[in-house]
Amino acid sequence: MRAIHIVTTRLSSSFRRPILYLDFIVSCLAPPRQFSIPRRLICAATKANGGGRSGSIVAPLVVNEEFQKIDVNPPKGTRDFPPEDMRLRNWLFNHFKEVSRLYGFEEVDFPVLETEALFIRKAGEEIRDQLYCFEDRGNRRVALRPELTPSLARLVIQKGKSVSLPLKWFAVGQCWRYERMTRGRRREHYQWNMDIIGVPQVTAEAELISSIVTFFKRIGITASDVGFKVSSRKVLQELLKKYGVPEDLFGRVCIIIDKIEKIPIDEIKKELGFTGISEDAIEQLLQVLSVKSLGDLEDILGGAGEAIADLKQLFSLAEKFGYSEWIQFDASVVRGLAYYTGIVFEGFDRKGKLRAICGGGRYDRLLSTYGGDDIPACGFGFGDAVIVELLKEKDLLPELGQEVENIVCALDKDLQGAAATVATALRDKGQTVDLVLESKPLKWVFKRAARVNARRLVLVGKTEWEDGSVSVKVLSSGEQFQVKLSDLE
Amino acid sequence: MRAIHIVTTRLSSSFRRPILYLDFIVSCLAPPRQFSIPRRLICAATKANGGGRSGSIVAPLVVNEEFQKIDVNPPKGTRDFPPEDMRLRNWLFNHFKEVSRLYGFEEVDFPVLETEALFIRKAGEEIRDQLYCFEDRGNRRVALRPELTPSLARLVIQKGKSVSLPLKWFAVGQCWRYERMTRGRRREHYQWNMDIIGVPQVTAEAELISSIVTFFKRIGITASDVGFKVSSRKVLQELLKKYGVPEDLFGRVCIIIDKIEKIPIDEIKKELGFTGISEDAIEQLLQVLSVKSLGDLEDILGGAGEAIADLKQLFSLAEKFGYSEWIQFDASVVRGLAYYTGIVFEGFDRKGKLRAICGGGRYDRLLSTYGGDDIPACGFGFGDAVIVELLKEKDLLPELGQEVENIVCALDKDLQGAAATVATALRDKGQTVDLVLESKPLKWVFKRAARVNARRLVLVGKTEWEDGSVSVKVLSSGEQFQVKLSDLE
Repeated sequence: MRAIHIVTTRLSSSFRRPILYLDFIVSCLAPPRQFSIPRRLICAATKANGGGRSGSIVAPLVVNEEFQKIDVNPPKGTRDFPPEDMRLRNWLFNHFKEVSRLYGFEEVDFPVLETEALFIRKAGEEIRDQLYCFEDRGNRRVALRPELTPSLARLVIQKGKSVSLPLKWFAVGQCWRYERMTRGRRREHYQWNMDIIGVPQVTAEAELISSIVTFFKRIGITASDVGFKVSSRKVLQELLKKYGVPEDLFGRVCIIIDKIEKIPIDEIKKELGFTGISEDAIEQLLQVLSVKSLGDLEDILGGAGEAIADLKQLFSLAEKFGYSEWIQFDASVVRGLAYYTGIVFEGFDRKGKLRAICGGGRYDRLLSTYGGDDIPACGFGFGDAVIVELLKEKDLLPELGQEVENIVCALDKDLQGAAATVATALRDKGQTVDLVLESKPLKWVFKRAARVNARRLVLVGKTEWEDGSVSVKVLSSGEQFQVKLSDLE
Repeated sequence: MRAIHIVTTRLSSSFRRPILYLDFIVSCLAPPRQFSIPRRLICAATKANGGGRSGSIVAPLVVNEEFQKIDVNPPKGTRDFPPEDMRLRNWLFNHFKEVSRLYGFEEVDFPVLETEALFIRKAGEEIRDQLYCFEDRGNRRVALRPELTPSLARLVIQKGKSVSLPLKWFAVGQCWRYERMTRGRRREHYQWNMDIIGVPQVTAEAELISSIVTFFKRIGITASDVGFKVSSRKVLQELLKKYGVPEDLFGRVCIIIDKIEKIPIDEIKKELGFTGISEDAIEQLLQVLSVKSLGDLEDILGGAGEAIADLKQLFSLAEKFGYSEWIQFDASVVRGLAYYTGIVFEGFDRKGKLRAICGGGRYDRLLSTYGGDDIPACGFGFGDAVIVELLKEKDLLPELGQEVENIVCALDKDLQGAAATVATALRDKGQTVDLVLESKPLKWVFKRAARVNARRLVLVGKTEWEDGSVSVKVLSSGEQFQVKLSDLE
């Protein structure tokens, strides 16, 4: 017997667009859940499927139909991409991809649906609480990926010794999180990731930040618009060691501290208290985290530790890469994912209006949490939402219209086949063609030509076609001429 | 209190690759479901989260960790795309996209997760039975899309009068189906769709088939490799009318007949019998469906109906488009989706080894099933699986390696900053650069250069760099020279 499918529907309180109807079927008898099913429908449905095979009178299998309200909008928190939005998405993604290739990175991808276990870590991350998880028909716990890094780690382990390190991989993939939608945030976004697997040195982080800077420059964003706050988780690690806090609290403390600009400081202190860190240590910790100069940090930690050495090297490399003015030290940056172990960074808008634009860091010990051998690694995630807000704010969104070289139109219904021949000839030469598929008045054709930004209008008329010719009108200049089809370039 | 997350895992019987471990957390006390949790873990977990806030002793929040077997493979029926597979995917998708643009189509996309109701139709389609559906955290029935057309219809209704018809839209999107995996089929594939909304004439179908032919030609597939079987659902409609079968059985009968080559003919007859069609009518119906010539069909149906007229026009247009040798009439083709109303077609390999390569047709009445006003429409879906099998068989898969213009390497650890400067200069000129991020012996660098197919090796040595120069080795010719960085093109 088939599974029960009762169509339930979100009835959003903020409906503005029309609610439409979808006919539906009740595949087998089941108690109604969210709305009541008319009795006659249930009766009909009982016969409709499953047991119906014994009868052979006319139409026992025609089930009664009922209309159920359905929304023409995409599910809450998700997006359609009509052509105008798709053009912007392609523009953005092409920049992601071109920059990645400029840096010698190879593209990869993973399933959008993964085993839930892949994303479950112990540190109480926001991303974990927002996991878009389900049980599938085979009773397996699965989740729409909230991020790409765990899948990447899984693939690296799977590939094992068959790949030569370092790997430089990038991906642009959709990620999901189930949020309460309170802050106008969506439940899906696309994320550009670049990861370097197999390089323990800070040169890798420096290279990653360089690629993001290159991306910003390409789309018109400058160092006066955005910057990178940089720190190292080793700062926190060295501090916790100093205060005798157990090492296994590290990830959890990072997650708490990441909320420092989002929740009141007293809450932060309380949460840190719950982990068992003494009040005194918490006060000192918070003081260190407010440090914005590498020199001051060195005074506190001493010059011997890895934290200072890594950060110094990163700032020195930034100079050589040519992006010093883009980055600054900020001890409060720890990032919200549990797996970072070294340098962490986030891109921010200097006006302070938006959430982090991107973020990343080193995660040298992620692979062993999945049972693999650890390989030094670092990477970043760059979403498609905040950057578009920033571009809008700076008036930097590109104007992207449809572009077609030719619009081809028959002047007579009998010539539609001829127009098809003309379109084929042009396409064979690599020319894009919008072929008019119906008999339409010339006025309509000119309007369409303008809408699709056609460069030329190619008209197939009776007299010219008898001669193997067509009329061509260059739409920018109004220039018009007759040409043999074989000569049309 | 947080949701319960017990990590459950598929233990596939066909494990060949290593099983690894993932540490996990039990967020709150819950009875074990699929495996037993050690008692100490449950106890620890009780304190771990939620109620733990009252304590402040060290580490009450450190939960016990346990290892749970996890697979390093992607979930059953899904794929990772490591670089070599991603290159093939990009190659294929770029052809999909270039051909679509050549025909003046605009790209669109929709959410991969849709309301389940969107995909539920009454006709008993295979696609419906394989719906990858879930209940989300908000108790809404959702599904990973099994096809793109319903989302397209939803968007067209939503856009309403704000768009000018015809719309010519294409999409390349991932689709999901939950199958029992018996035939080595996957649970996800990517599908290229092209749809024309607003054109009632057969010119639209002719244009769609033309675009697929163009695609085939571009990737090296000829008319002797593949063909299109073409028919019209109006054939069946006219036949059913002739035999007095109620119109609302139409969709269901189509679905049954679509299985004609997949299940024994007696099963087909039985299923048709259940719909209430008389035995006599079934026999005649099946006889007509075996007709492979338009002339013979005309003898049976008479020349007056729309079915014959549409098909004749299509074959006439095919000649003008120049793809006559690719298409043939075959009355048995009806396609497995309930919503088709007119011309239907499917691409097949002439050796008869593979499933349908692509399929499509006219669906003039889909929009009203969602409550919208009907608009004449047609489209096709073209998956990424069968075509790759065919390309493999014909030995037409392209060889796609990584391509990088330069590999830049410091000859000395102190010169890594200088190498970064060189890489930046080259990238600013639009040159792709794989920057060596560690100190490596030259032998290693040459090996890597070969692996990434680098065109040039740029070495940053102490003496040259003091002079602002670098050594360049052209790897194909072995030619080597020194050049000022500013002169390096």
